[in-house]
This record gives sequence, structure tokens and C-alpha cells, in this order.
Amino acid sequence: MTNLLIAQSGGCTAVINSSLVGVVDEALEQGGIAGIYGSRFGIRGLLDGSLMDLGRQDRATLDRVRRTPSAALGSARYKLSDAECARCLDTLARHDIGVFVMIGGNDSADTAHRLGRLAATRGQALRVVAVPKTIDNDLPDTDHCPGYGSAARFLAQGVVDGGRDAEAIRHWDPVKVVEVMGRDAGWLAAATALGARDARDAPHLIYVPERPFALDAFLQDVAAVHARLGYCVAVVAETVRDAEGQPVGGLERAAPIDAFGHPVIAGTAAALCGAIGAELGLKARFDKPGTLQRMSMALVSEVDWEEAYACGRAAVRVAVAGQSEVMVTLRRVSDEPYRCETGLTPVAHVANAQRLLPAEYLHPTRPWVSDAFLAYARPLLGGPLLDYGRLDDLPV
Amino acid sequence: MTNLLIAQSGGCTAVINSSLVGVVDEALEQGGIAGIYGSRFGIRGLLDGSLMDLGRQDRATLDRVRRTPSAALGSARYKLSDAECARCLDTLARHDIGVFVMIGGNDSADTAHRLGRLAATRGQALRVVAVPKTIDNDLPDTDHCPGYGSAARFLAQGVVDGGRDAEAIRHWDPVKVVEVMGRDAGWLAAATALGARDARDAPHLIYVPERPFALDAFLQDVAAVHARLGYCVAVVAETVRDAEGQPVGGLERAAPIDAFGHPVIAGTAAALCGAIGAELGLKARFDKPGTLQRMSMALVSEVDWEEAYACGRAAVRVAVAGQSEVMVTLRRVSDEPYRCETGLTPVAHVANAQRLLPAEYLHPTRPWVSDAFLAYARPLLGGPLLDYGRLDDLPV
Repeated sequence: MTNLLIAQSGGCTAVINSSLVGVVDEALEQGGIAGIYGSRFGIRGLLDGSLMDLGRQDRATLDRVRRTPSAALGSARYKLSDAECARCLDTLARHDIGVFVMIGGNDSADTAHRLGRLAATRGQALRVVAVPKTIDNDLPDTDHCPGYGSAARFLAQGVVDGGRDAEAIRHWDPVKVVEVMGRDAGWLAAATALGARDARDAPHLIYVPERPFALDAFLQDVAAVHARLGYCVAVVAETVRDAEGQPVGGLERAAPIDAFGHPVIAGTAAALCGAIGAELGLKARFDKPGTLQRMSMALVSEVDWEEAYACGRAAVRVAVAGQSEVMVTLRRVSDEPYRCETGLTPVAHVANAQRLLPAEYLHPTRPWVSDAFLAYARPLLGGPLLDYGRLDDLPV
Repeated sequence: MTNLLIAQSGGCTAVINSSLVGVVDEALEQGGIAGIYGSRFGIRGLLDGSLMDLGRQDRATLDRVRRTPSAALGSARYKLSDAECARCLDTLARHDIGVFVMIGGNDSADTAHRLGRLAATRGQALRVVAVPKTIDNDLPDTDHCPGYGSAARFLAQGVVDGGRDAEAIRHWDPVKVVEVMGRDAGWLAAATALGARDARDAPHLIYVPERPFALDAFLQDVAAVHARLGYCVAVVAETVRDAEGQPVGGLERAAPIDAFGHPVIAGTAAALCGAIGAELGLKARFDKPGTLQRMSMALVSEVDWEEAYACGRAAVRVAVAGQSEVMVTLRRVSDEPYRCETGLTPVAHVANAQRLLPAEYLHPTRPWVSDAFLAYARPLLGGPLLDYGRLDDLPV
């Protein structure tokens, strides 16, 4: 018998708590697990000994938390020093914790890897299992990441909605730029294409960080769509950079680098709207859904929500089976009907790695995606978007 | 027998098409109406003779359009010259249109008033009826405006969602500013208070345009909430102004004035995030839902959607009964259970007028709302928001 600890790490999603409850539920059913604990604010809870009992939460609380976005334990984005890794292991030993499940992204996989290595060196019995979590969908070795499908659903629906607005108010507000998240990867920006059913639907243009951003080409693209339709909605990843690698929106003033050394970029859409006004003479406004895109339980993907839960359950099973330093993955076993199973990959493969959009998921010439991407991403939305209509243009 | 024309005007909402279909449905049932036409892009359709037959749309199309956000006919924000008013009346006469229903806000009421006056002067048989529509909720003489409840629901839910995010990631992203619409009125900003169930829930601070915005006080408020909770979510109307009337975010570059002479302001939240970083040393990010807040059918208020439809139906009934130059209103006949009926007010009362948040709907000292406001606004959301949970902080 051993105790189990769960931590949530990195940016939040709508379904990270579904993974959390999946871990708890499986741990409650497994014979080999005694106490089920949570670490408050990710790895920080291990550093300052701030743990919470999850095994004694009542069922109704767990069920409500499973339908609550964000990280119920609190999260962290914190890179441990070697000395802090040792302190974390001391805390684990003190509480007889032999299984540590980290729900997180690339950075969490790195932390899991380092803790696992150090435990092995010290001869400390510890199995560390990572559960994938990121709206950015940029973890290697997994078909996709829990959290992505729900953010994709929110954005695909939101961009269609905003496009209907631009279509109607074209005579005074013809151009809209929607700034979306995704760090260095364009998976979220690309997903907005899933909402467009015909040439009038938004988005009309999609700019991903995988391709160098050229302002002149962007302005030509916007002008061309505007000339054709009378309005234009462009989706831009907040991290698009020019051919020299310079961010379009400039670096944020207060905190240009986060704890893991990633630059924090702001103002991309605002800068582009200014350029559209100045160069094309078209009024442009921007939507920046910000954290709303990763937090919407109202627009959660049920597929994503169930898969997040399944990944949490799988993590406990593999730990009990003796595996360590692995991350649970999703393996697509069927496209039609869509079905994924859980699998495993070494956390060393995932630590600090990034899976960018492959070239075959982008249109060869236009700022758009490929049919292969649409086929890949559509089932992750968990069902069709809302079914909108247009009036027939019947003459009087 | 006469023909009826419908136009949609001003910024879009999630339910303006519900009003449109309400007009069509009532006109189909009324004996006195022959053709049912739509004007494309608001008053512009009358100027350039661009009309569409709405009476011959099939039922399935109308039902889908009723569940589609934005303005299915297209919208306009266009101030007619006197000569153009005369041209509009010529178009109406040419098509034997004796009833004109305008779905819009303050500016549309002004247009309806001018067309009605000129028709009377010319002896042209025309009844002009306005249907209220604005997420800003700033029309006088009506309990509230169709469109407001749905935007309020989207924002109240979105701010709670974003607050859960800030709560979890407080250690690296502790402060969030959410910039909301509302022109000169704080109704939408105020509505975000409806999502907060306890002191931890967002929002924690609400800044409305009705009160002069003081940066020093704002920074003190943010610092105080951050000191108490470890994170802070502030909602700021995009149009807050300082005691001298200067917009906090600066005037937008390309088009500082819209067609009706309203200044267009941008960048409020971005400016405040910069100040929070520079003055408080706290990292602050902003969400700017933009047009998403007025376009979300996924988060529509069913009460709003039904009332919008009822207002459309009422407009036709009063026109057939001989009324003109009136706007349909909503009259609250009961708070518990909530119930509204339609009423009427002269468009002259509404034209270019604004109903700001009354002092009794604001907290006397804090940047917050009053209980009276919460009681007023809660039923307009059309049901409770999502029910989220928190883990019990059980010790290990």
C-alpha cells in the first residue's frame, strides 16, 4: 500500500479537473492505493508541504469539480532547482507517497522526468506519471492533448459568431482580427477553420506561428477578402513572428519572459488593426477572448471532457502496474467512427519538446488549413457546432 | 391591405433575428398585411432599393434564422440627410409599404421619428414602429432592451470562468482585466456581478462609465483585492473616462468618430494592464471578448430570446391597430415570478436619448453594484449560470 499525490500544472483548461477526478476515481478503486492527496498550486505544494486530502472529498463535490473549469488544486508554472527537487522528494517520502501524478504540459513532463531520475538515484520508491493537458495541443507522441478540443470548440464557434457580426455590420466595421492563444504552435488558430461551412463564414484567413508572418502579404490578403465579400475576419495566433523572428505585437512591458524562459507577447491584433486602418483605410477591430477560450464549460467538448477523465484513470492504472516516468497519451484507433485509446510514452520524449503543426496540415499556398487537418480536428470538437441559417435572397 | 417592411439597424445582438422572425410571424397572421419585405443593410436598403421578400421564406429557414445571432438582413449605422429621408419615403410609396418596423436602438428611433414626421407632412400613409434592440440596455422608457440579457449572460459566465483561471494561476498571472462593451452606460459591466457567488468568485471590481475613473483609486482597489485573495479580476467598461472626461484608453487612431458622432475608444484594458505592471509590479493580462459578447447563441438567455420575439410580434399588432412613431417597450409586471409584458412609448422619447445606470443600482462607495441592481438584472439572464464546485480543503 502506498499513498498517491496529484498536482495540476501550467495554464488551465476546461477539462483539467475532469482528469483530476479521473485520477481520484481510479485511485479509490485500486487496491494498492491508501491515501489520495492533492498538492496545492502544482509543485509548490510539495515545496511548502501544502497538501489536501482528496480521498475524503464527498461524491457531490467531486462531480461538481469535474464540471468546473480551471485547476481546482491551483496550478504553478515553476522550474525547480536541483535542491528544490530534493526537497520535493523529501516531502513525498515523509507522506509515504509512492505514486505522483502530474497533470500538465511540456514543462510538467520535464519536472516529472527530473523527479523520477533523482528518486531513482536516491533509491526512493516513486512512480511518476504525467497526464497530458494543454489547449496548445503541442505535446509530442499523442494524437492530441486534453484541453485542446474544448478550446478549439469555443474558438471555432466564437469565430463563426463574430463572423456573422462582421457580415452584418460591414458598412461601418468591415474587418475583424481575432487573436488566439497557442504559444509557438498554430493548432488553436487552425481549429477556427472548423466553423466555416461556406465562403461567407468566418474565418477567412488564418495565420499560424509555424509560418513567418509578412505584414504586406497579410494586408493584401485582407484587402482581397474585403474586395470579394465586403468584410473580412482574420484569425491570428498571438505569437506570429516575422521572417526575422520578431513578434508582430512587440514584447509585453512588465514581464517579457515567463519562468520557463518563454517570451510573453501581447498586442498582436491591436497592432494589425492599426496597420489595416493606416494602410488599407479600413476600420478594423479585434476580439481577444484571452482566458475565456480555455475556460468555457458552456462550450466544452464532451469528447475532450471524457478523454481527460480517461487519461486520469489510465495514469493510476499504469502507476499501479509499476510504470514510471511515462506520460499517458491518446492513440487514435479509428477515424470513422472516431475513437481513441490511451497509450504511453516516456516523459523524456515530451519534456520541453513541442509538436508544431506539420506542413501537411496547412494549405500549401494560402493562409488556411488542409483537408487533412480538418479531418483530424473535427471529431475533437465533440459534435457539430450550432446550426445557423441565412435568409434566401428572394426578390420583391 | 398594405405591405410591411422590416429593417435591422445598429450593432448586432444574439436575438435581433428572433425579433425579425417575430415580426414576420405576426405579419403572416394579420389580415391587413399583404407583402412582407426586408430592407437590406438597414436604412441603406431603402436608399438603394435593395429589398428582399420575407413572406415567402420557408418555415425551416425562418426557424434557423431565429436561432442565428447577428442581423440576417444586414445592418446599418447611417444618419439620413433630409433629402435621403424623402428618398426613403419615395421607395416606401413605390412598394405600397404602409408599415415600417425598425429593429434598433437610439439612433434607429431617431430615424423612425424623422421618417414618421416627414410622412405626416407629405400626407403619406405610413406607420413606423420601432422594436428595441441593444446589448447596451440604454434605451429609456423600457424595463430593459432585447439583446441585453444574452450579452449579460455571456459576460457573467465568462467572467466567472476567467476568475477561476486567475484563482488557479495566481502565482504567475494574478491580475486580469476584462474589457466589456456598453457605450456610455455600465449595464453590461454591472451584469458581470451576477456570476459572483462568494468573495472568491470574479469579478471583484467593476468600473462603469457613469462614475469618473481615477487611476490611483483603481490601482489601490486592485492592490487591496490582490492582498486579500492573491489574485484579482477587474471588469472595466471600454468607455470609462477620467474626471476631465478623457478616455482611459485613448482614442482609436483610424476612425475616432462613428457616423452618429460617437467617439470610438480602444485600448482601455491594455492601458490599465500596463499601469498595474508598472505601478504595482503585478503581472496583468486582459480579456477583450469584443463582438463575442453580443453574438453567443450558445449562451443566449432564453428569456431574452423569447422577449425579442414577443417585441417583434407586438410591433406588427400596434401598427395594424393604427399606431405610429412608437417604440415597443418591455414593462415588468411581476418580479417574483419574473414576468414582462410589452408596452409602448413615443419614439420621440427614445430618439438619441440614453438611459444610464441610476445611482441606486451602484454601490454607494465601492466599485460594485447594489442589491437592487442584482434583483433587477438576475431574471434577464434566463436561468442560473453553470454550477461550479470547489474542493474542500481537507487536511492530510
